[in-house]
Amino acid sequence: MMLKELREKVYEANMDLPKHGLVVFTWGNASEIDRDKGLFVIKPSGVDYDELSPENMVVCDLDGKVVEGDLNPSSDTATHAYLYRSWEKVGGIVHTHSSAAVSWAQAGRDIPCYGTTQADYFYGAVPCMRGLTEEEIEEAYELNTGKVIVEGFEGKDPVALPGCLVRNHGPFSWGKDAAAAVYHAVVMEQVATMALHTEQICATAGKPIEEALAPQYLLDKHYMRKHGPNAYYGQKK
Amino acid sequence: MMLKELREKVYEANMDLPKHGLVVFTWGNASEIDRDKGLFVIKPSGVDYDELSPENMVVCDLDGKVVEGDLNPSSDTATHAYLYRSWEKVGGIVHTHSSAAVSWAQAGRDIPCYGTTQADYFYGAVPCMRGLTEEEIEEAYELNTGKVIVEGFEGKDPVALPGCLVRNHGPFSWGKDAAAAVYHAVVMEQVATMALHTEQICATAGKPIEEALAPQYLLDKHYMRKHGPNAYYGQKK
Amino acid sequence: MMLKELREKVYEANMDLPKHGLVVFTWGNASEIDRDKGLFVIKPSGVDYDELSPENMVVCDLDGKVVEGDLNPSSDTATHAYLYRSWEKVGGIVHTHSSAAVSWAQAGRDIPCYGTTQADYFYGAVPCMRGLTEEEIEEAYELNTGKVIVEGFEGKDPVALPGCLVRNHGPFSWGKDAAAAVYHAVVMEQVATMALHTEQICATAGKPIEEALAPQYLLDKHYMRKHGPNAYYGQKK
Amino acid sequence: MMLKELREKVYEANMDLPKHGLVVFTWGNASEIDRDKGLFVIKPSGVDYDELSPENMVVCDLDGKVVEGDLNPSSDTATHAYLYRSWEKVGGIVHTHSSAAVSWAQAGRDIPCYGTTQADYFYGAVPCMRGLTEEEIEEAYELNTGKVIVEGFEGKDPVALPGCLVRNHGPFSWGKDAAAAVYHAVVMEQVATMALHTEQICATAGKPIEEALAPQYLLDKHYMRKHGPNAYYGQKK
Repeated sequence: MMLKELREKVYEANMDLPKHGLVVFTWGNASEIDRDKGLFVIKPSGVDYDELSPENMVVCDLDGKVVEGDLNPSSDTATHAYLYRSWEKVGGIVHTHSSAAVSWAQAGRDIPCYGTTQADYFYGAVPCMRGLTEEEIEEAYELNTGKVIVEGFEGKDPVALPGCLVRNHGPFSWGKDAAAAVYHAVVMEQVATMALHTEQICATAGKPIEEALAPQYLLDKHYMRKHGPNAYYGQKK
Repeated sequence: MMLKELREKVYEANMDLPKHGLVVFTWGNASEIDRDKGLFVIKPSGVDYDELSPENMVVCDLDGKVVEGDLNPSSDTATHAYLYRSWEKVGGIVHTHSSAAVSWAQAGRDIPCYGTTQADYFYGAVPCMRGLTEEEIEEAYELNTGKVIVEGFEGKDPVALPGCLVRNHGPFSWGKDAAAAVYHAVVMEQVATMALHTEQICATAGKPIEEALAPQYLLDKHYMRKHGPNAYYGQKK
Repeated sequence: MMLKELREKVYEANMDLPKHGLVVFTWGNASEIDRDKGLFVIKPSGVDYDELSPENMVVCDLDGKVVEGDLNPSSDTATHAYLYRSWEKVGGIVHTHSSAAVSWAQAGRDIPCYGTTQADYFYGAVPCMRGLTEEEIEEAYELNTGKVIVEGFEGKDPVALPGCLVRNHGPFSWGKDAAAAVYHAVVMEQVATMALHTEQICATAGKPIEEALAPQYLLDKHYMRKHGPNAYYGQKK
Repeated sequence: MMLKELREKVYEANMDLPKHGLVVFTWGNASEIDRDKGLFVIKPSGVDYDELSPENMVVCDLDGKVVEGDLNPSSDTATHAYLYRSWEKVGGIVHTHSSAAVSWAQAGRDIPCYGTTQADYFYGAVPCMRGLTEEEIEEAYELNTGKVIVEGFEGKDPVALPGCLVRNHGPFSWGKDAAAAVYHAVVMEQVATMALHTEQICATAGKPIEEALAPQYLLDKHYMRKHGPNAYYGQKK
């Protein structure tokens, strides 16, 4: 069996999704890529979480074709594959239907950056992609979902903004590996909830939501404190 | 004891309701029908969940009369019976007072389809039925609840829309068996929460909620991807 | 030690409060009365839930004076005592700071009856009492809280409306015993959450909240179905 | 190893943060000071909660310099140190990113005192501090966070208001020790949720939120009942 260690990591990442309350039933998937081999491991489609194992994860190539595995891979496999092809620095990808993030995706709005909880991981707003056209959906839905994401990130750095919302659908997140993508999925759900409540707390007092936006220099400070060349959060590694 | 296997399935379905956070105390019930025998099994009325067992489930005929069982069946039995009589393709029914779905039922509004989480299981809005008249309530409340549901589905397919809201009351859902009805009850509660938040995220930014509606071709794609003749979600069976 | 069985029941009722998510820390109390002896048992004040036992419950007379017990009784004891003195049919009382019910109490609004979840236990709106005056607070705060509740129920039946909101404070509920009072505290928290969401679902669609009110004949039916002389919910007892 | 008992207390306080739902991942920290020695113990930075132990807590002096410990202390250490230097009566400090409190901090609003749940611990509104300027952030972010808090409390008593919101960031709380600071962090999260819902319940009925404010004499009564010279809540100690 190929990629034993990677299977284990992807399995763990998938199991973390319901544990963090991001997934009910089978509504989520995580994958991670082995860049040297050009292969990624992803959850099988529609299999209950308590039946998942490292062994029934599915190995795919960068075209999303199954290389090893008896089960169908996640129906979103073509999206994962396209993002891996497009963004070399991305090592892991997660998709969920977590409640608050989906709500922003359904409203078709970016999640504005109202504070440091978001700024520690997202260098600005979590962007909401445009909706797919009827033609894009009919032609190749999952592949084109990937294309719309990459298009939406033109001029943006997917490392500094490790996630987005797909309109009328839900959140995708990524990171250096599957665990980092899970982490960012949790962050997105947290800030999605907080941002809604922030706007409501403004609204009930008649305060414009624009006044709640975190100033750019606060974003700079928090993002750099964790991710810049002189980062001092956490332990030296 | 009749229908031993069906009793077990209905028992499990009922126990899943509090596990999914859909039910407090005894506020819910699940049933499933054996179409060959024309009998369905349903939870007894007002019995604590930790006192339920496959053995104390109640067997009823299609008129809702008890065929086997020492306990009174759920007070909503006549509703279940009428739906089974009216809709041959329905094999299981669930009723709960889950918080978000009840809130939509109380507001008397359909849950609009804002995204794929709903479209994967409901081919459009989750419809809210009209309220019962005073006469309907006094004459035969539970039976007429069933009649109002069937009336509200004239021109609609209960397989493509496996649930509804009864005004000022709460959600009913159904499916090929009791487990599927439970599944759809969970979906309804999830999308009820998301739809409220979606509308609020629109509202705080002054965006009309109509702009958040999922386009019809997205509904088509998601519903067909899971339920159409060429469905490719999940594993071949 | 007096009232051994009653101590056990009151202990269990108090322990159920955090279990139902109604209480954090020590912010709640339950009591039950022995009408024959004219004594009630109540939780001690400010003691952690994991240090409670049937033995450290406090026995009080109808003036709220300690008859047996080493610890101070709940600081709300005078409120409980006054309600027991005023309402002969009440056998158990609960006070909590449960989140949604407190929010309605703080807003100073009755919880309107929007549906059957509430109508099954409350024959109409959950009433919010007037605030206490400065004089009432300074003179005898807890006793006067009881007086304001009884005043607010003039013309109302505390059996048909087994709970209320004390303005800027929180919910009190009652019933035939402490367990029933806990049950009604859970109902209040559930319907408080649902009523807020119901109003919000109306608001985002520009629908007046008055249109969401349950019609009187629905209240009649549901309340009578459970509590009237011909009640048919649950099992014969 | 120094301060063995204090390490244990600070460890327990930190572990209580996720237990109360105030912290996901590593987003929080608690500390406590030994006033005689002029040293405080604080959580290490960015270490998973399940890897924490009394032994890997970090001991710092009042300038925030590490006196004992192999790991970096919390990135917020300079804030803790400044508050300890400024406020002699404060013995423990907690910082979290709890969801509702962060939402108020992001909205840049004080949490108004709408009821007794808040008044039992906070003698008035939970104040939101001004945002830091660009210069303050660049010069010494964490130290200046402490300075902005102390500035915001000019004319206020940090014992009577044991917490605040740092704008676009989140809540800080304190108390006589780390356990008290945790307690106040829980109170802040609770009242932050209730205050939002209170305002929403006003809003849906067109009631001005000012009418929901608790009257001053109710604040006086509740705060004094627990903390005044004649306090009668809880047990004599």
